[in-house]
Amino acid sequence: MKYINTLREGDRGTETYLCKKKTQGISKTGKAFESLTLCDKTGTIDAKIWDVDSEGISDYDELDFITVTGDITSWNGALQFNIKRLRKANEGEFDITDYIPASKKDIGVMWNDLTALINSIQAPYMKALLKKYFVEDKEFIEEFKAHSAAKSVHHGFTGGLLEHTLSVATNCDYFSRQYPFLDRDLLITAAIFHDIGKVKELSEFPRNDYTDEGQLLGHIYVGATMVDRAIDEIEGFPAVKRKELIHCILSHHGELEFGSPKKPAIAEAIALSFADNIDAKLETIYEALENVEENNLTWQGFNRLLDSNIRRTGKN
Amino acid sequence: MKYINTLREGDRGTETYLCKKKTQGISKTGKAFESLTLCDKTGTIDAKIWDVDSEGISDYDELDFITVTGDITSWNGALQFNIKRLRKANEGEFDITDYIPASKKDIGVMWNDLTALINSIQAPYMKALLKKYFVEDKEFIEEFKAHSAAKSVHHGFTGGLLEHTLSVATNCDYFSRQYPFLDRDLLITAAIFHDIGKVKELSEFPRNDYTDEGQLLGHIYVGATMVDRAIDEIEGFPAVKRKELIHCILSHHGELEFGSPKKPAIAEAIALSFADNIDAKLETIYEALENVEENNLTWQGFNRLLDSNIRRTGKN
Amino acid sequence: MKYINTLREGDRGTETYLCKKKTQGISKTGKAFESLTLCDKTGTIDAKIWDVDSEGISDYDELDFITVTGDITSWNGALQFNIKRLRKANEGEFDITDYIPASKKDIGVMWNDLTALINSIQAPYMKALLKKYFVEDKEFIEEFKAHSAAKSVHHGFTGGLLEHTLSVATNCDYFSRQYPFLDRDLLITAAIFHDIGKVKELSEFPRNDYTDEGQLLGHIYVGATMVDRAIDEIEGFPAVKRKELIHCILSHHGELEFGSPKKPAIAEAIALSFADNIDAKLETIYEALENVEENNLTWQGFNRLLDSNIRRTGKN
Amino acid sequence: MKYINTLREGDRGTETYLCKKKTQGISKTGKAFESLTLCDKTGTIDAKIWDVDSEGISDYDELDFITVTGDITSWNGALQFNIKRLRKANEGEFDITDYIPASKKDIGVMWNDLTALINSIQAPYMKALLKKYFVEDKEFIEEFKAHSAAKSVHHGFTGGLLEHTLSVATNCDYFSRQYPFLDRDLLITAAIFHDIGKVKELSEFPRNDYTDEGQLLGHIYVGATMVDRAIDEIEGFPAVKRKELIHCILSHHGELEFGSPKKPAIAEAIALSFADNIDAKLETIYEALENVEENNLTWQGFNRLLDSNIRRTGKN
Amino acid sequence: MKYINTLREGDRGTETYLCKKKTQGISKTGKAFESLTLCDKTGTIDAKIWDVDSEGISDYDELDFITVTGDITSWNGALQFNIKRLRKANEGEFDITDYIPASKKDIGVMWNDLTALINSIQAPYMKALLKKYFVEDKEFIEEFKAHSAAKSVHHGFTGGLLEHTLSVATNCDYFSRQYPFLDRDLLITAAIFHDIGKVKELSEFPRNDYTDEGQLLGHIYVGATMVDRAIDEIEGFPAVKRKELIHCILSHHGELEFGSPKKPAIAEAIALSFADNIDAKLETIYEALENVEENNLTWQGFNRLLDSNIRRTGKN
Amino acid sequence: MKYINTLREGDRGTETYLCKKKTQGISKTGKAFESLTLCDKTGTIDAKIWDVDSEGISDYDELDFITVTGDITSWNGALQFNIKRLRKANEGEFDITDYIPASKKDIGVMWNDLTALINSIQAPYMKALLKKYFVEDKEFIEEFKAHSAAKSVHHGFTGGLLEHTLSVATNCDYFSRQYPFLDRDLLITAAIFHDIGKVKELSEFPRNDYTDEGQLLGHIYVGATMVDRAIDEIEGFPAVKRKELIHCILSHHGELEFGSPKKPAIAEAIALSFADNIDAKLETIYEALENVEENNLTWQGFNRLLDSNIRRTGKN
Repeated sequence: MKYINTLREGDRGTETYLCKKKTQGISKTGKAFESLTLCDKTGTIDAKIWDVDSEGISDYDELDFITVTGDITSWNGALQFNIKRLRKANEGEFDITDYIPASKKDIGVMWNDLTALINSIQAPYMKALLKKYFVEDKEFIEEFKAHSAAKSVHHGFTGGLLEHTLSVATNCDYFSRQYPFLDRDLLITAAIFHDIGKVKELSEFPRNDYTDEGQLLGHIYVGATMVDRAIDEIEGFPAVKRKELIHCILSHHGELEFGSPKKPAIAEAIALSFADNIDAKLETIYEALENVEENNLTWQGFNRLLDSNIRRTGKN
Repeated sequence: MKYINTLREGDRGTETYLCKKKTQGISKTGKAFESLTLCDKTGTIDAKIWDVDSEGISDYDELDFITVTGDITSWNGALQFNIKRLRKANEGEFDITDYIPASKKDIGVMWNDLTALINSIQAPYMKALLKKYFVEDKEFIEEFKAHSAAKSVHHGFTGGLLEHTLSVATNCDYFSRQYPFLDRDLLITAAIFHDIGKVKELSEFPRNDYTDEGQLLGHIYVGATMVDRAIDEIEGFPAVKRKELIHCILSHHGELEFGSPKKPAIAEAIALSFADNIDAKLETIYEALENVEENNLTWQGFNRLLDSNIRRTGKN
Repeated sequence: MKYINTLREGDRGTETYLCKKKTQGISKTGKAFESLTLCDKTGTIDAKIWDVDSEGISDYDELDFITVTGDITSWNGALQFNIKRLRKANEGEFDITDYIPASKKDIGVMWNDLTALINSIQAPYMKALLKKYFVEDKEFIEEFKAHSAAKSVHHGFTGGLLEHTLSVATNCDYFSRQYPFLDRDLLITAAIFHDIGKVKELSEFPRNDYTDEGQLLGHIYVGATMVDRAIDEIEGFPAVKRKELIHCILSHHGELEFGSPKKPAIAEAIALSFADNIDAKLETIYEALENVEENNLTWQGFNRLLDSNIRRTGKN
Repeated sequence: MKYINTLREGDRGTETYLCKKKTQGISKTGKAFESLTLCDKTGTIDAKIWDVDSEGISDYDELDFITVTGDITSWNGALQFNIKRLRKANEGEFDITDYIPASKKDIGVMWNDLTALINSIQAPYMKALLKKYFVEDKEFIEEFKAHSAAKSVHHGFTGGLLEHTLSVATNCDYFSRQYPFLDRDLLITAAIFHDIGKVKELSEFPRNDYTDEGQLLGHIYVGATMVDRAIDEIEGFPAVKRKELIHCILSHHGELEFGSPKKPAIAEAIALSFADNIDAKLETIYEALENVEENNLTWQGFNRLLDSNIRRTGKN
Repeated sequence: MKYINTLREGDRGTETYLCKKKTQGISKTGKAFESLTLCDKTGTIDAKIWDVDSEGISDYDELDFITVTGDITSWNGALQFNIKRLRKANEGEFDITDYIPASKKDIGVMWNDLTALINSIQAPYMKALLKKYFVEDKEFIEEFKAHSAAKSVHHGFTGGLLEHTLSVATNCDYFSRQYPFLDRDLLITAAIFHDIGKVKELSEFPRNDYTDEGQLLGHIYVGATMVDRAIDEIEGFPAVKRKELIHCILSHHGELEFGSPKKPAIAEAIALSFADNIDAKLETIYEALENVEENNLTWQGFNRLLDSNIRRTGKN
Repeated sequence: MKYINTLREGDRGTETYLCKKKTQGISKTGKAFESLTLCDKTGTIDAKIWDVDSEGISDYDELDFITVTGDITSWNGALQFNIKRLRKANEGEFDITDYIPASKKDIGVMWNDLTALINSIQAPYMKALLKKYFVEDKEFIEEFKAHSAAKSVHHGFTGGLLEHTLSVATNCDYFSRQYPFLDRDLLITAAIFHDIGKVKELSEFPRNDYTDEGQLLGHIYVGATMVDRAIDEIEGFPAVKRKELIHCILSHHGELEFGSPKKPAIAEAIALSFADNIDAKLETIYEALENVEENNLTWQGFNRLLDSNIRRTGKN
């Protein structure tokens, strides 16, 4: 297949892409046409069907994989796929991994690591709470494993939410060893739950965009209530630990201006907010530089999240 | 009774006050003593019982009304009540309104006004939701009517939460007439619920201080979940309206740095945050100036919430 | 007429537009040409006259309505009107309302409402002051009615200054009922005057752009001095009320960083700054969403003034 | 005389001080007493007259110089002058310079320097404008010469407004030589006028406190209108220069958050805001260190205006 | 010995304290007296010698350990040691650890751990650089081991600089395992050097206060130049690594407003700034709560560094 | 020669430009091509060599002056030089001043003025320090004279560093006369050295871009260490003056958020930061307006450094 980021004006041929968006229009001459956004894992391209009644144009819907024939033109300085023929692609004609960015790490291995952390929890009520979601709720488990942790920035790929959650929990596991006054059960439970609201804040791939719930409520509130409601069903969950756990989730962005309604006020909340922040920042610089060759010391430009121009470190 | 803000060094006599705090100490000579904080609605004074085993000192607990005999001394530049005799006060010996600041408005009248607003809601599910708390939950109703809206600043008196809520809802009622594109049912329902989390954020009078839940979770999260859980029990509550209502509560502080995890993103959320803010600011300047005489144009000093030196407006 | 936002490459014909800007240039071959900006109420388009000496090109000036013949080409990704023939349009050939955005509300009705508010003022000196501008100064009245309240953002249309002023004053009228300690005469007078500096800060339509005075001095200073000078002519205007009224105008943006040289320090100044701010914010979201269909819950993108992504509220 | 900053508990005797404040009170025993604030140029002390009907207590008013007999006691950790006898001091019994801090520079010399700068202005309308105040308005001249430039911080002494104004204008004179594209007449005129609003923002010595006008309007607005009104009376003052001059005054604090309603937008406004700011900052560090001995390198503590701990520079 | 925080008015006796400050004064009666600040590890108390010529008063200097006899009085609400007899204490009469707060961890063990980290460095030039200070420079080693990491806040005790440095380096060691794209040699070297400027920024115990160098230059600049100069002497130190190492030190406060002249721009600099910040914050909350009893859930008040009210986490 | 900012689509011919950048590419058809960035002092243009093996294409490198033949085409809305023939230009075929922006002032004259300032320094160690760089280090002198003071913004031309340095030092010379408590030797020495780190922060013309050292360390640190190391070699340089001088350099940006690791804490540091800032701001507005005609009062748009829309001042 020809990836979208390699298309050039004048190209002509048949390719299979994902139809991310589809809208109707009326041309100046009064004729109906259709505008599409095609995508694969390398990017997106606008497309047009000027002759929607052509026999070559089959029925299709948004988020279908479609096989399109046409040529690439240029309009107002951007490329456009001028579609002459279109049909839904058949299973087997395409490999979904060409269309959806994915974690480089093995989902199974990461899941096992996360499960091991859950099993290491001592307090029975904390373990019971974790199991409600991460052992008993099969639907949640599938969503969680397949989800990204972001629309763009860091971990914006399938498996990203699991990868980020495991990394944050692993950081917390280390902190609980280095700073032994921390309550390890509370800290690791909070780490594993800290971003679960993202399964509702972001839609699944291939869309991977903010949901209405995400825009209005945000993953911090949604995640906190998911945990809060699950605790209702765990008999004997200590009232103080419930508040401390929810507090850790609410405050994990560290500052009010980053959307946490409370600042971290107990040691574990402080530790979690750092564990999350360092994973976000280091993954951001990693992703930004992973395609830069070793020992290429060119400055890569200003990175908004890191608030600095960045470059790769020299080879030792 | 002699109000605390009128006590002077050298005063001597018997008075009844509320015991807000009680702690044990050991003097340098190894003798046990007790430190108390006494209060009435005009302020607080430290007190000491040096001779705890005296016959004149009866049993008492924090938050008891106690009748104390002794004299006023000065220590490190602050007054201190040196207690010689102490007993619990009997019902009838004191008037609780001398000890707890209260709204100047009539609770019954305000409650009727709030009820009338609830009855004016058209959407049956919104009205049903309001009734869950404001008609059916007798315990909540009593708490809500007796609560303050703040530890100090504005509306920090019993009845204050009702007074503030009614005022904000009345502002929203006006806005829904002046800006008719607003969804009145959503806006007024959100206004009535916006601060209900305060019944858990602040303890009841006479303590009226932040609870552990208030410190860790805050009234925004607590109030939003109170509404969220009540909606669970209302069949057919529209999913979109649930999100919009919770959004209004989450965003009512207007800015992330004021503890809202989301900025107002729909028109009703914007209107609510203004209705709340203007009531807070105008009540603040009202309370700060209510004891300044008419046409006294002296500047009263810097007010932290208003971020300005303030003065009364001249008489027309 | 063909509105500018419907023009497409290849269109060809004769249309009447307003010439908002006109500049001379010299082409690479040494020939003189002219660049124009044409506009109507739907937008603007660049235009070129390559053959300025052609008989078909009559004399014209900036801000003339001109009837142009030519075709639409594309240059560097933007459309351009290539003018072959040009003449000034005659009165009657065009309808000025096609070229200037206007309030949807009736100017006469709004003016009557404003006049009623003025008549409701009790203090004779305040009423006298209002009449200086809003009854006696015919030229000012015409300017005020025709002015916008902004270059772009909210109320950026003819009649917008009147519409915004009336709305702010109506809000203040409500506040003076809800918060009876407010000095209604002071508050409503301040509301009616609060933005009059805009008649000098912004030029009249069709230009509706910042004037030199607006850039250098701003409507807050200009408006305050307009009121200050008018008070000079009103015998017996109380000195305290003069300062309080000017203070309300100076502080109506609420914060120093929004261009107010003083923070609101009296209750009426606080109320006015809220009355202004809520009208600005609610009109902004109204204008941003008025063309979105009912129950279209799509997120409309980030709004700079509201500092949030926004969407329409769902239909009840 | 015994300066206030040298009084100690137990002192007893007769001294003459300025009575800055006088209020009536009623003691616990129902007796009238009077509270005074006494001051000289070294500080202030509270005073009490417990026996107001004593023959030894003559009539007096706020801001009188009074000769008081009594002793110094300590109350709540602060000293208090317990007055037994009091009479108004006679002219000749005290030297006013003991009570009012004053510029160390000669008023006459500074005035001559300022006059020389005024005479160096070329543009006749600018010179005419300056003369309106600095030559023709005798009352203004006296006020201006005697005024301070601040309540506390830098130049908070009589003659301070003249000293600061001259220094800022001298800085501007230098800038106009070093950066010859600057309009010297505009710049120096703006410098001389930039703080004249302070004659109304601050009351005269001995009070030297914010006036009601200062609190509500501020010296920036007041000064700008003083210039604006004077220009009305100068025939042929160019409209552009009027706006530029007023702009320089409005923007001289450099940033909106420092109370300027406009940021400097022309070169002269930028130069003026720097000329003012550097004089304020260098005078601040000068005053803070002038009593520190040469080569004393001790750190003097955090200075709020300079936002840093400060120390004297070592001797070369 | 009687610790300073246990002294009470009326106490009388002989104690040995450290004389932190000594100044001369002249009383109102013209007699010389001396003011001292006495301290031990629990706090400080003012002291006075009214009869400096008494035989009982021997010679002494600032920072001497002195044995004083006298009684405790109260002045303006603070305690004061009224000294009648004074002599320098002899070695053996006091235990220096009563006067200087110290790390609870064993210096030798921590030093071994740090040495092990140094030995684990692979790059010979990095190891050589570390050895310049941490193996070869005996004087530096003694200073480093005895130094605090702060005047007050976290790690403000002898051994604190070593304890903090080891903890930050250990965090970095973990990060280099969890994020394997990090250059471990660079990161750990930077961690070990990041605060060495503090040996010059803060004076040694017992003074432990900012030095003139600390105030004027700060530990970031001073530490960076210490490393920079040492690199001069290491033949073949790669130019790129020198810049990257210095960059890590310069940027380790993470933000310009915290005194770093550069934001972290390479991955190791980001990791170091987090490793430092989390150790600072967790040690701060640990020190603030270490004296609070287990399961005491009382809120401890606002902590400035953590920008939140804090409390101990409940016991599991 | 035809300046780049005058090239138009369709132009064709032979010109000499500087090759600022050169990269290799592979076209869709598998053929190698080269992309170049050509520049002169008026701007830059992209260029392509599609036929790299053509005989007409000679060898060349980045930063060569090259003589190219071809035509100007348009691609995606930007111009492109389509190169058919290319050879290195010979000395004499081009005037380097056409390619590099330069100070309008005479380098020799400015150098003499700077030398005179150096000679006016009294303290022998300060003079010796200045001579280390500005008299004895011939290589540094050549670099310093040829350097710019910025990549873009103000003084971004050859000679700009000298011009800015002289102007800042001249401002300091004035300040030391107007504020005689300033240590002139310290202040002027600091002024002359304040930006010398820029000779390493920015590469030489024609590149004039941030170096790796500039990005990682910045001119403040680099300049401070250049001075610090030179002082090492000056026997008897007073330790206090060394710290004060380095402090002035470190703090010359005035605020931590502008990259100074210390705020100005002594009077000379305050004076220097102002002297630098005013030269930067006034040169910025000068450069932004120098091509606007006299008395053209059009507003020139928002200037980011000045944080305001700007315009030329009217002609007197």
